[in-house]
Amino acid sequence: MNYITEKLRKIKEKGLYRELRYIETSQSPRVKIEGKDFILLGSNNYLGLCDDFRLKKAAINAINLYGVGSGGSRLTTGSFDIHKALEEKIAFFKGAEASLIFNTGYMANVGIITALCNKSWVIFGDRLNHASIIDGCRLSGSKLIRYKHCDMNDLLNKINKYKGSNNLIVTDGVFSMDGDIAPLPDIVKIAKEHSIMTMVDDAHATGVLGKNGSGTSSYFQLHNKIDIMVGTLSKAVASEGGYVAGKKDLINYLKNCARSFIYSTALSPSTIAVSIKALEIIEKDEGRRVNLLKMSSWFQNELKTAGFDVMKTETPIIPIMIGEADKAVEFSKSLLNEGIYIPAIRPPSVPKGTSRLRLSLMATHTKQDLEEVLIKMKFIGKKLNIIGG
Amino acid sequence: MNYITEKLRKIKEKGLYRELRYIETSQSPRVKIEGKDFILLGSNNYLGLCDDFRLKKAAINAINLYGVGSGGSRLTTGSFDIHKALEEKIAFFKGAEASLIFNTGYMANVGIITALCNKSWVIFGDRLNHASIIDGCRLSGSKLIRYKHCDMNDLLNKINKYKGSNNLIVTDGVFSMDGDIAPLPDIVKIAKEHSIMTMVDDAHATGVLGKNGSGTSSYFQLHNKIDIMVGTLSKAVASEGGYVAGKKDLINYLKNCARSFIYSTALSPSTIAVSIKALEIIEKDEGRRVNLLKMSSWFQNELKTAGFDVMKTETPIIPIMIGEADKAVEFSKSLLNEGIYIPAIRPPSVPKGTSRLRLSLMATHTKQDLEEVLIKMKFIGKKLNIIGG
Repeated sequence: MNYITEKLRKIKEKGLYRELRYIETSQSPRVKIEGKDFILLGSNNYLGLCDDFRLKKAAINAINLYGVGSGGSRLTTGSFDIHKALEEKIAFFKGAEASLIFNTGYMANVGIITALCNKSWVIFGDRLNHASIIDGCRLSGSKLIRYKHCDMNDLLNKINKYKGSNNLIVTDGVFSMDGDIAPLPDIVKIAKEHSIMTMVDDAHATGVLGKNGSGTSSYFQLHNKIDIMVGTLSKAVASEGGYVAGKKDLINYLKNCARSFIYSTALSPSTIAVSIKALEIIEKDEGRRVNLLKMSSWFQNELKTAGFDVMKTETPIIPIMIGEADKAVEFSKSLLNEGIYIPAIRPPSVPKGTSRLRLSLMATHTKQDLEEVLIKMKFIGKKLNIIGG
Repeated sequence: MNYITEKLRKIKEKGLYRELRYIETSQSPRVKIEGKDFILLGSNNYLGLCDDFRLKKAAINAINLYGVGSGGSRLTTGSFDIHKALEEKIAFFKGAEASLIFNTGYMANVGIITALCNKSWVIFGDRLNHASIIDGCRLSGSKLIRYKHCDMNDLLNKINKYKGSNNLIVTDGVFSMDGDIAPLPDIVKIAKEHSIMTMVDDAHATGVLGKNGSGTSSYFQLHNKIDIMVGTLSKAVASEGGYVAGKKDLINYLKNCARSFIYSTALSPSTIAVSIKALEIIEKDEGRRVNLLKMSSWFQNELKTAGFDVMKTETPIIPIMIGEADKAVEFSKSLLNEGIYIPAIRPPSVPKGTSRLRLSLMATHTKQDLEEVLIKMKFIGKKLNIIGG
C-alpha cells in the first residue's frame, strides 16, 4: 500500500487532488451544500428535469409496479417490459431501426467499441473525445489514431496515412469540456468517401440540439448517415444510462457481444420509467430547449463582452479558460465564497495548461440567477486578473 | 455493416444467439412474462428484497426529497449527502476505513484495476473470474496470469514463475456461474508470504455469506486481511452499483484516478437510498440470510439425489451442468413450457462445453415453489436424458 500512498502524495504535490462536495437538495438552479445556499452552474441537468414532478411521478409509479432493483443482467432475468419500451422509444427518438440501453455512457462506449473493433481495426478519434471512448479504443486492441480537435485536414491526412482494412471514425457530438460541436457534415462526407464507419457520442447533445432535442445528427440533418449513434440518459434526460441507436443487425450484434452489456445488472425499472417520461417531455416541449439555447447564447455573449475566454462554445456548456490548475481552483473557490458553485476542471479531465471553469446552464435558471452570477464573476475575475479592467 | 451481419450469422450458426425475455412484474419468486405465470429461479435478488415495501418507501422518499437523476459526475455536481452516507455505511458493513461507490460492479473492477495497475504489474487471476475483472486487467496493460480455478498449487507455481516487482492476486469471492467459494484463507496466506496485494470481488457474496451478510472476508474471518474488497449493490442488496472498501489512502487514490468513477454520472439519489435501507435490513435480519442458505443446501441435496450435476456449489447459486449449448437451451425451454424460468448459460459466459442452467434461490421462495420445480426438473431431466431413471 506504500505504492498508493506515494502516488497520492504526488497528486497532492501537483495541486491536482480532488475532494467531493455533497449537495443536500435536488439538482436545481439553487442548491444547499453543508447548509449554505448556492447558485449551481455546473450541472448536466440541462433541461432542468431532475426535479420535474412528472418524472418523479413516473419513477414512483414504476417502483410501486416493479419494485426497486432489476435483480439480473439483461440476458438472464433483468429485462422488464419497460426496458423494451424505452429501447423502442429511443429508436423512434433517434430515427433509427433499433436501440440498446447500457448502464452508463461509459459502458456504452467501452462495450460498443470492444464488441465491434479488434486489433485489425484502425480507429480515428478526435483528440478531445471523452475518456470512455478512449478506454473503449484501448481495450479493443485497435490502433487508435487521434486527430487534432475538429481538424478535418488532420483527419484526412491521418486517414491517408493509417487507413487499414477495417476503420472507424469516432467523435463526441458536443465536447463535454469545451461546448463546441463536431463538424459532422464534413466527417460524414470524409467517411463516405473512404468507406469508413462512423460513431458519434451525443452525451451532451441529447435533449439539447436538433429537432425535438434528438441530437447532432438531427441538428445537421444527417438522418441515417451515422452508423452508430450513442448518447446518455443521465444528462438532459435526467435519469441514468447510456444508449446506442442504429441498424437492427448492429443492435442484435451488440446484445450478443458487448461485454459491458452482457456482464452487468440491468438498470432499475424506475430509472427506465424516468427516461421514457423524460423523452416524452423532450419531444413535446420544444420551448424548454429553445429557451435554454437562447439563454446560453445571451450568457456566452455577456461573458465574452466582460473579457472572459469562453472558447468556441455553441451550447449550454460554457468553458471559462484559465490555464493553470491552481488559478482555476482559486477562481472556483472565490465564487463558492460568493454563493456560486462552478466546478474547476483540471487534468486529467482536460489537457495540461488548459484548466478551466466549466459552467453549464439549466433551462430552469432564471435571468436573475445569471445576472447575479455575472456581476460576481466580473468582480472576482478582475480581482484575480483573469479579465482586465 | 456487412462485417456485422456476417458476425451475427456465425453466432446464430453456433447456436449461441441470445434473445431477451421481458418480465412484466417485480423480480419475485413468481413473475409474469408475456401474460403467463412463471416460477423465477434465476435471479440475483438473493434476499428477495427487490419488492420489499421498506426499500420502495426509501426510494420514494428520496425521489420526493432529491428528485430523479443526479445530474453530474461525483467529482463535479453529482455527489449528494446520501452518497456520502452510503459510503460510510458500506465502510462500516465491510469493517473497512472507507469505501467508494461505482455505477456498476463492472465499472468498479475496471476502474480499480486500471487505476492501480499498469504494464509494470503482474496480476494473478482465477481462470473463472468475472468478465469485468478480466476487462480491467486487459485495459490496465498488466501481465495477466490466469491460474486454474481455485487451484492453490497452480497459483503458487505461477507466482514462482511470473512474479514481478508489483503484483496482485484477484479472485471472485463466490463464482457467479458455479456457486463455489474461493479458498481465501489459502490465497491470503500465499499473498502474505509473497508480499502480494489481494483483491476479492464479493458480487455474489454480499448479503449472502459471512456475519450479517458482509461477505467472504467475514465468512472466513479474514478481517482486514484483504486489501481491496469489491462487491455489488445490485444483487442481494436489490439496488444498483458496485463498491470498493479498504484503507483510506486506497479510496482517496481511486476517487482521484479511477477513470470509470471520474467519467460517469453519479447514481441517482433514490438508487442510493435503496442501498442504504437494504444494508440496514441485511445487518439486522440475519434470519432471512440463514433461511436462504438452509433452503439452498436442502435444494442442492435434492437435486444431487435426483442425479443432477450441481458441481461444487455452496451457495444459493446452483449450476446444473449440461455440457452442450443446444442441450442446455432445450432444457431451459422445456422448463419454460412448464412454467419455470431458469436461464441457460452458454459461452462466452462459461467455457465451451460447460453450458448449464444457472439456478438461483431467493429467500422469498417457498418450499412449495421448490418442490414444484423439483418434480418438473426431474421429469424433464429424465425425458432429455440429463439424469437417469
